[in-house]
Amino acid sequence: MASDLTSDTFLASKKISDEIKADLAVHPEKYTMLTGDRPTGRLHMGHYFGTIRERVALQNAGVTTRIIIADYQVITDRDTTANIADNVHNMVIDYLACGIDPEKTIIFTHSAVPALNQLMLPFLSLVTESELMRNPTVKAEQEASGHALTGLLLSYPVHQACDILFCKGNVVPVGKDQLPHIEQTRQIARRFNERYGHVFPEPHGLLTDAVEIPGLDGRKMSKSYGNAIALSATEEETAKLIKKSQTDSERMITFDKENRPGVSALLTTAALTTGRTEQDIAAEIGNDGAGALKRYVTESVNAYLAPIRERRRELEGQPEMVREILHEGNRRANEIANTTLDEVREAMGMVY
Amino acid sequence: MASDLTSDTFLASKKISDEIKADLAVHPEKYTMLTGDRPTGRLHMGHYFGTIRERVALQNAGVTTRIIIADYQVITDRDTTANIADNVHNMVIDYLACGIDPEKTIIFTHSAVPALNQLMLPFLSLVTESELMRNPTVKAEQEASGHALTGLLLSYPVHQACDILFCKGNVVPVGKDQLPHIEQTRQIARRFNERYGHVFPEPHGLLTDAVEIPGLDGRKMSKSYGNAIALSATEEETAKLIKKSQTDSERMITFDKENRPGVSALLTTAALTTGRTEQDIAAEIGNDGAGALKRYVTESVNAYLAPIRERRRELEGQPEMVREILHEGNRRANEIANTTLDEVREAMGMVY
Repeated sequence: MASDLTSDTFLASKKISDEIKADLAVHPEKYTMLTGDRPTGRLHMGHYFGTIRERVALQNAGVTTRIIIADYQVITDRDTTANIADNVHNMVIDYLACGIDPEKTIIFTHSAVPALNQLMLPFLSLVTESELMRNPTVKAEQEASGHALTGLLLSYPVHQACDILFCKGNVVPVGKDQLPHIEQTRQIARRFNERYGHVFPEPHGLLTDAVEIPGLDGRKMSKSYGNAIALSATEEETAKLIKKSQTDSERMITFDKENRPGVSALLTTAALTTGRTEQDIAAEIGNDGAGALKRYVTESVNAYLAPIRERRRELEGQPEMVREILHEGNRRANEIANTTLDEVREAMGMVY
Repeated sequence: MASDLTSDTFLASKKISDEIKADLAVHPEKYTMLTGDRPTGRLHMGHYFGTIRERVALQNAGVTTRIIIADYQVITDRDTTANIADNVHNMVIDYLACGIDPEKTIIFTHSAVPALNQLMLPFLSLVTESELMRNPTVKAEQEASGHALTGLLLSYPVHQACDILFCKGNVVPVGKDQLPHIEQTRQIARRFNERYGHVFPEPHGLLTDAVEIPGLDGRKMSKSYGNAIALSATEEETAKLIKKSQTDSERMITFDKENRPGVSALLTTAALTTGRTEQDIAAEIGNDGAGALKRYVTESVNAYLAPIRERRRELEGQPEMVREILHEGNRRANEIANTTLDEVREAMGMVY
């Protein structure tokens, strides 16, 4: 029963997401997208193929795009902000190198926008403690972290509502497991509007159909698994990472995710970065073995990332400009947040 | 065991509170006091004798005083902000009429200070969900309200920490039942300082030894019981309220809280507003009955409140000036909050 329900909910969300995608192509000006990342390390190819590439495409299609560097989310499940300034600086560089255009898109940090964060207070009044406790993603994240459930992680769906609604975002690119968060945001928007008058849109999840690039060991690509190729890695670092990735003793190269996760992950990486199919590449390498496959993957990845990395190097040489772009993003985000907070105060009668 | 522990904790807090009171008289400049009220209605004599009078004394003794009008706390346990602007305006008038001096003391509204509210995010990362759930006062307030436990009420001790710590408050006038909140604030300050470097003081509760003025029926004075004399009531409204208060059929007036709650509440009200003892007043009225007592109480209360009400009437005629005082308070509170938030960002390495 529960899983049927979940599935029905998923299908309904998928249907809406597909309709929005169709409409986006025709009326991009109707949409404001909020998306972002936690600055816990360098962005890697998993981020690029999973979301960044799609963001750039939506930005270029004319969708109003806001990217939050969610620095406060770093401390939802850890006790330190070590290296955060460096991570944030490099995240801005990664975005720009991947094609995010600061003339079109606002890049900002969570901690720099007080009026956005103030929305936490009215929004927390619109959810109950039991609704917070029920969120499946929060529980999963807490268990994965092995850290006590902090008040910040418990209230995570509410900050996310603040992040999305401060700029009146109406679409949010998400994976299936993040749909409950979007539902919580919709509920907060709906309850606010019902109680105090219309201020917020009810946003929808834009279910990504991006192909998932596996990590070098066939698991999900993640810095913590050591199986990720960072966008900022050098060609040599990339070659070394791929070289030490685990394959198997069979010389003949075939695509078989189940039984040959290492070889298949390399084939998918090569496929995504060349536009060929895994089978095609496997056939070409044939009996030349894992060494030949790894050389092919290294060349493909380095060739694919070359223009991004070249822009990265240029940007690394202009730290002041990168900082200026973030400051300007923060300034614009504050302007939007202040306007929204004024509307919230007005709706709630808190104008004195 | 639990109650012994509570009692030990209480005695320790009481000891510190007494030491601070002694030191306050000698070194008021060492102290910053944060205090405030929820703008859910008019301030009444219960507020005046319970806290406002003490605030004014501490302000005049040279303690740095910040008063928060906690407008967001109105929605911790209710779904409406009806009349909030009027309540806030009248609260400022009440404060000023009672002797709060805006040259010395900052009066501000919670919703007007985004940088204060932003402290919620780092602070929520410093407490666990089980610590939030364990707070006895939150539970009691939720049960009393008959409303589902909102995220805002659940996180109430954390906002209170923001309210106290944004201005580096180190003393907070409290009743015994609010000591757990102060303990939570101390814990947040301590954890922040340990994790990121020293920014915050660890504040102490200043246990009030104010006499409690009973409501007209002998219960705690509260607007919701209909037993409260508002500072803003007219002399006629005050007379009417006292006249309809319930006494008993015994003509001879005696002070006996247990058996004669109505009569005794009137005697205490008269005692507090004249400086005489209840017994003394009872003896004077003697066999003249409840009617005579009520006349005496009405005269005493109206005489006591006369100067406050006169200033009130003057202030009611100058709404622009009252608003300007609040705006100036908000401006100064924002200045302080922005400075503190900058220190927090610096300590957390979130300067980009």
